[in-house]
Amino acid sequence: MKHLGLHKLCLIVLYGMMTTIVFGQENESDNQAHTFENMMVRIAEIEVEQDYLEEYISILKEEAEASVRLESGVICIYPMFQKENPTQIRLLEIYADKAAYESHLQTLHFKHYKVSTLSIVKSLQLVEMEAIDKKTMAKIFKKINTQ
Amino acid sequence: MKHLGLHKLCLIVLYGMMTTIVFGQENESDNQAHTFENMMVRIAEIEVEQDYLEEYISILKEEAEASVRLESGVICIYPMFQKENPTQIRLLEIYADKAAYESHLQTLHFKHYKVSTLSIVKSLQLVEMEAIDKKTMAKIFKKINTQ
Repeated sequence: MKHLGLHKLCLIVLYGMMTTIVFGQENESDNQAHTFENMMVRIAEIEVEQDYLEEYISILKEEAEASVRLESGVICIYPMFQKENPTQIRLLEIYADKAAYESHLQTLHFKHYKVSTLSIVKSLQLVEMEAIDKKTMAKIFKKINTQ
Repeated sequence: MKHLGLHKLCLIVLYGMMTTIVFGQENESDNQAHTFENMMVRIAEIEVEQDYLEEYISILKEEAEASVRLESGVICIYPMFQKENPTQIRLLEIYADKAAYESHLQTLHFKHYKVSTLSIVKSLQLVEMEAIDKKTMAKIFKKINTQ
């Protein structure tokens, strides 16, 4: 009887794990569709002082990483620079919604970045974007994690 | 004995599933690090004719979706337009490596896009980018799938 109990328990746990995997994935898509509807997409176009490029990149890297790790509403901050002109920085920023962005502006790590880079940034343009295909967005970025 | 056998079998299956989950994730990060090393990142800056904007967006959407779905080396093609100036299109393009990009240029869906939009595209600039933080890249984009 004891072994039968354990056997049943194992089957229940296995069934539970499989149910969680299958239904968890379905719920995930539902949430994605919901989240993407109100999301805020932006390309930040930043030009920095040549002499302080390395310092700037180090501060930016730290800030972007902390934002994505600590703030659930910061979906993505993806920093890049132009190969032919490395002082031209571009960030792809995606926030869950306007409120998530407002809350991001109040964080310590953002304030630290802002104050530390104030004299390094020569120009800053925040270009509001609209994603063309919200439906396949999860599929588009999913490959980054499965490659 | 029969029940004990089933119980052991269940435990083995459970252990196998957990090992796969834990080690699967580790292997995934290793592959990511490898892939990101040679990857090609680009922002395409495209201006299109106002009168054909809808037609252009529909063709682009189809091409971007097909590229990501059919080509393993196309990590991401993320199309956006500027909210204040919708004829200004921007694409974040990430290819596994140069070869993946060259192969993308030979696909039927890319050729179809190119021919169909030739008279709609007013200007095209392909800006080669360097990702600033390859190490945390998987984490950055992962949230898009878990939100």
